[in-house]
Formats: sequence, structure tokens, C-alpha cells
Amino acid sequence: MNRIFNFNAGPAVLPLEVLEEVQNELINYKNSGMSILEMSHRSSLYETINVEAENDIKELLGLDDEYCVLFMGGGASTQFSMVPLNFLSKEATAGYIITSTFSEKAVQEAEKIGKTQILFSSKEHRFNRVPRPEEIVIDQDLAYVHLTGNNTIEGTEFFAYPQTGKVPLIADLSSDILSKPIEAKRFSLIYAGAQKNIGPGGVTVIIARKSFLAGRSTSLPTMLNYEVHMDNNSLYNTPPVFGVYIIAKVVKWLKNQGGLIQILNKNKEKAQIIYNVIDDLPEFYQGYADVSSRSLMNITFGLPNENLEKKFVEEAEHQGMVGLQGHRSVGGLRASIYNAMTLDGCSALASFMKDFYLNNR
Amino acid sequence: MNRIFNFNAGPAVLPLEVLEEVQNELINYKNSGMSILEMSHRSSLYETINVEAENDIKELLGLDDEYCVLFMGGGASTQFSMVPLNFLSKEATAGYIITSTFSEKAVQEAEKIGKTQILFSSKEHRFNRVPRPEEIVIDQDLAYVHLTGNNTIEGTEFFAYPQTGKVPLIADLSSDILSKPIEAKRFSLIYAGAQKNIGPGGVTVIIARKSFLAGRSTSLPTMLNYEVHMDNNSLYNTPPVFGVYIIAKVVKWLKNQGGLIQILNKNKEKAQIIYNVIDDLPEFYQGYADVSSRSLMNITFGLPNENLEKKFVEEAEHQGMVGLQGHRSVGGLRASIYNAMTLDGCSALASFMKDFYLNNR
Repeated sequence: MNRIFNFNAGPAVLPLEVLEEVQNELINYKNSGMSILEMSHRSSLYETINVEAENDIKELLGLDDEYCVLFMGGGASTQFSMVPLNFLSKEATAGYIITSTFSEKAVQEAEKIGKTQILFSSKEHRFNRVPRPEEIVIDQDLAYVHLTGNNTIEGTEFFAYPQTGKVPLIADLSSDILSKPIEAKRFSLIYAGAQKNIGPGGVTVIIARKSFLAGRSTSLPTMLNYEVHMDNNSLYNTPPVFGVYIIAKVVKWLKNQGGLIQILNKNKEKAQIIYNVIDDLPEFYQGYADVSSRSLMNITFGLPNENLEKKFVEEAEHQGMVGLQGHRSVGGLRASIYNAMTLDGCSALASFMKDFYLNNR
Repeated sequence: MNRIFNFNAGPAVLPLEVLEEVQNELINYKNSGMSILEMSHRSSLYETINVEAENDIKELLGLDDEYCVLFMGGGASTQFSMVPLNFLSKEATAGYIITSTFSEKAVQEAEKIGKTQILFSSKEHRFNRVPRPEEIVIDQDLAYVHLTGNNTIEGTEFFAYPQTGKVPLIADLSSDILSKPIEAKRFSLIYAGAQKNIGPGGVTVIIARKSFLAGRSTSLPTMLNYEVHMDNNSLYNTPPVFGVYIIAKVVKWLKNQGGLIQILNKNKEKAQIIYNVIDDLPEFYQGYADVSSRSLMNITFGLPNENLEKKFVEEAEHQGMVGLQGHRSVGGLRASIYNAMTLDGCSALASFMKDFYLNNR
């Protein structure tokens, strides 16, 4: 079997060019006589990777030296706790915008540390949308406001972020990081598990304003203190070397595509092909997300019954398209089409959807 | 340049057979049509890897279902905090055996959580040895006793562990995990960064008695609660998939070598070749560690002056042997010869040492 179209929600498809490079240099990286998997994180070759990944991410986002980029382990789930441990205290209140199961997990970790205020929740409507900016009213005494930029399970995405005034804005962009241009300077801290748009599982990217990270409490567990990682350029301890190496390659690949405007245009085109089928056949394909909030990364939809959904997944697999089952918590179907998913993959899925309709309506 | 002899302290040399397998299947893992780097951690292919890695580690250590093996991110440094967060409280006291800079880092994290008692320290002698078991007296009220099994920077290693009675024994075995048989059942919890003996950077192995992990406080940050990881078979969130995949292969390689007794014999033979040169030329090569505590993993030694040490590192590099500089905190030279370092590599280093002596005495 050749390479298939991988619609998994994460870990997810990576650019084939990147994988081929990784394969070619796996045993002997840049004539060092060793694999990148065996290389000291204190070596100059790895330091170059670390620095280039940081600089390329900043360049793509239009950030200057006011910001730093950190690489850690532990996934976004660890960030759910690190954010309140670093920026919330028992007496203070943090604002959370709840648009998904993952936003809920984030606020639950904050509740262990201090007070929280729910600024918006679409839970009653099964998280089918994100708020419009004007729906969010922000008390200027909040320690920070936290939102989930793209909701992987539900298939919704922010395209305009709320104005938070002087209150620091923190976002989990795990599933839409570097998939479109954003006003990055409006964020005090962005975090993202790499395993959807920019790398493999096991590495988390943090993009933060340096002044926001400075002055953390020394009573924090050292590894949970952002400032320690900033002061050590992500080299306080052994980092996930291989994950950062992949990120560095994916980020160069994104730059070679022309940057984030080009990436956004491509992602829009890809998503539109599939949403068009859903919109053309509304009796058969039922979109999960409110149209105003539709994600360009995760397309969620259902069929008239579960048996058909099961049949859809099975037949798609036979045609070389995998990962189309919806998350167990919402059911239905989901096509995750991150940066590295090709237009060909989306076209193939759209064709299959049309055929499946004709054969099963 | 072909593959060199890599004496780095970690990340470190991996078996060439493992790297070749990884390279071969990098683009299309087991005919799945995707790379292991792109594979969902919920897929049956990955679950097999996860289960086999756990079972093989337990088999090598002679452990049964009383124990579990967990895979996490964050390195041993995160474990320095997780151990006291899970098993120490403000009023309780934990005992620490201090044999290295890393033991000191571990106790510093415990001091943030509760009381600590130093049961032994070789700091005054620059951490040149580990204690004999009979030097350690253990108050049976301690929450646990923590030790560092092998001291990477100083080149010392425990070959007999103290008797702790009913007090749980916890060990950081980052740099000698699966390098020799141990009485694993004497430990309540073992943790190890994988990047020395069994895998790449970015994944930590935890081997623990299940009953010890049960009943943790739900007020802990979720990702720092061992019980959560145990209850979810290391799949609470996206794990470091690729790292676990490499560990699974290295562990199979260890089994193919015949198991831990065979590995120990090979490791002894490798170390002896180099220690013999040090012992035969004591005026020139000055061993750092007390002979009774000499590590089989990290061989630390100095030369009569720093210029000679610099020359040694440079000339060794020209002969294809890298990573021989000592850690900046102790200086001198260090040869790390973990499981995957070959006998040929150790023989080459020993020959070089003899020649270097003849040319520079």
C-alpha cells in the first residue's frame, strides 16, 4: 500500500517532503556521524535547530525580540496547569471562554489554583460555535483571559479574537497554530501541542511576550516555571530534541509555501471543497458547527444514522482515506485537514462524499 | 564521514540496528500508509507498541502485574517535582541520598512541598562515591527514600541499594536503567529519562507498584498525577509517540541480546577495558570516582592539566570519537558507554588512551 490520505485529528499528516528529508538523514545527520536521535542537546548542531525553529516561527508570526518561543514536553494538557500556576493566585480571578471539552479541561485546572469566571460557554449547544468578539465583556481586574482558538473535537474556530484591553490574552492554539495569519502581538502567551499542524506528538510550542514570563515565583516546581525555560532557551533539561527538529523542518516548509497568507488561502480552498458538499446535500450531510464558526482545520458532520456513518468510515478506508471517525464524545464524522493535508486529499474526500450520497441516499 | 563512536552523556548512542529499522519504515509504518510520526495515539498499531514496550520492560526486570510502566514527557527533571507532589505533604518528611548535582536538584523540589532529611551526602568529596548500604539509617516514619542510581556527571553508581524496610524506595535510574539486573521489586517507583540507555530525548519511563500510585490527591494538576497516567495506560493525552516507539525497539534489542545479565556482562567488559588503562597509568589518568563506586555507564577521569585534556578531546575527535569532554561542573574527561556503545568503541578509546599517554607523558 502506498501513502494514504490521513484525516486523523492528531498526531496527523506531515509534509511528505519533510518525512523524506528525515528519512534520508536519519542515520547520519549533516555528516556528524550520528543520528539526530543520538545527538546531545548541547551540541552546536542542535542549538542551530533550536534557534532556527524559534526565529522562523517568530518570522512567520511577525514577532520581534519582545517575544520568545519555547519548546517543552507534556502536551497542551500540561499547559492547562502551567498557565494558572504561573499567572493566577488564590485571591485572583481568571476569565475563561468555554468552547469545547478542552476549554473545560483548562478551566478545571485553573479552579485548583484560584478563582475563575466563565466569560462565555456554548456548552448548552454542544459547543457548536465560538463567541463573536462583542459577546465577551471583560472585567479589567482579571489576571488573564484564556480561549481555545480551534476546537478539534467540535470543528469550530475563532476568526476574530475578543479585545481584552490591558488584561493578558492567553490562547491554546494547538489545532490551528501557523495555519493562518493572526495578530500575534495581541497575545501574551500562545501554546500549542505540535502534533496537528507543525510536528509530531510529545512537543509543545509556547510563544510568549518575554516581559509576561519574567518575575515568576521561585516556589513553583522548576519545570513548570516558564521563566526557567525562557532563561535557558528551552535547554534547562534535555528537550524533546527530535520533535523540535521536525518542527524546524515543517516551519521551513511553511516558509517555502510563501508564508501564512498563502497557507490560509490554501487551507480555505481545501475546506471549501468539503463544506460545499455538506452545504449542497444538507438532507444527507449534517454539519455540526454553526456556519459562522466553521473550522478550516476540522470539518465535523453527521449522516442520517449511525449505520451509515460506520459504512462511510469503512468505505473511505477501502479507498485510502483514514481517520474520518468523529471523536467519541460527539460521534459522527470528522475530517481533519491541517496544513500538510493536500488539496488532492480534500478533493478525493469530496468526490467520495458525493458518490457515497448517490449510493446511499 | 561514516558513523563515529559517540561517547556523549545523553542523548546518546542508539543501536545501529534500531536506527536502520526506524529509517526503513519511516515513511510507511507496517504498511499503514503513514509514518509513525503521523499516527494517532488511539490507533491499534500504536497501542500495540505501547503495550509491548510496557510488557517487555516488565519482563526484563522480572516484574508482574503488581507493577505498571508509564511513558511521559518532561524528563527526569519533571519527576523531581512529581515525586514529592504525589507522595509528600507539608507535615511529612522524605529522605534523600545525595550523590550528585541531580540528587541535589531532586531534594530542592521536595523542599518546596514538605520536609526533607539528608540521609547521606558525598558533596564534601565532590560526589566521588555512593554510600554503602549500611551507612544509611532510615527512620521508618519517612514518606519515602529517594536515591540517584547512577550519577552521570560524576561517574558513580549504586551496585547495592539500602534496605528501607517499610519505607517506599524511589529511584532516579535515568543513566543506568536496563543496563543490569536489579531487584526491581524493592522499588516502589523508578523513573528514568530515556535518552541514555533506552531511547531519545523527550520521553521518561516510570516503573511503579500500582498500589503505590493509587489514591493520589485529586487537587494535583492532572498531568502531574501518576494515578491519571496509570488509569489511562499513558494515553490520558497525546504521549511522545515516536519516543515510545524507539524505546519499544531498543527494549526488543535488549531482549535479543539475551536479557539483563548478558547486558551487564557486556557492560562490565566494556568498562573494564577503559578502567584498566586508567589503573595502569595512574600518574597520567586520574580517575574521578572512588574505585568502590565506579560507574559502568560513565567513566570520569582527568589528565595532569587542562591543556592536555583539551588536546585529548581534539585528537580523539580526529579519530572519530566524540563527546569525551567532562561536564562543565566537574571538568576533566568523561566517556559515557551506555548499552548501545559497542565493545569496539571502548577498545578504540582504550587504544587511543594508551597512545595518547605515550605521546604526551
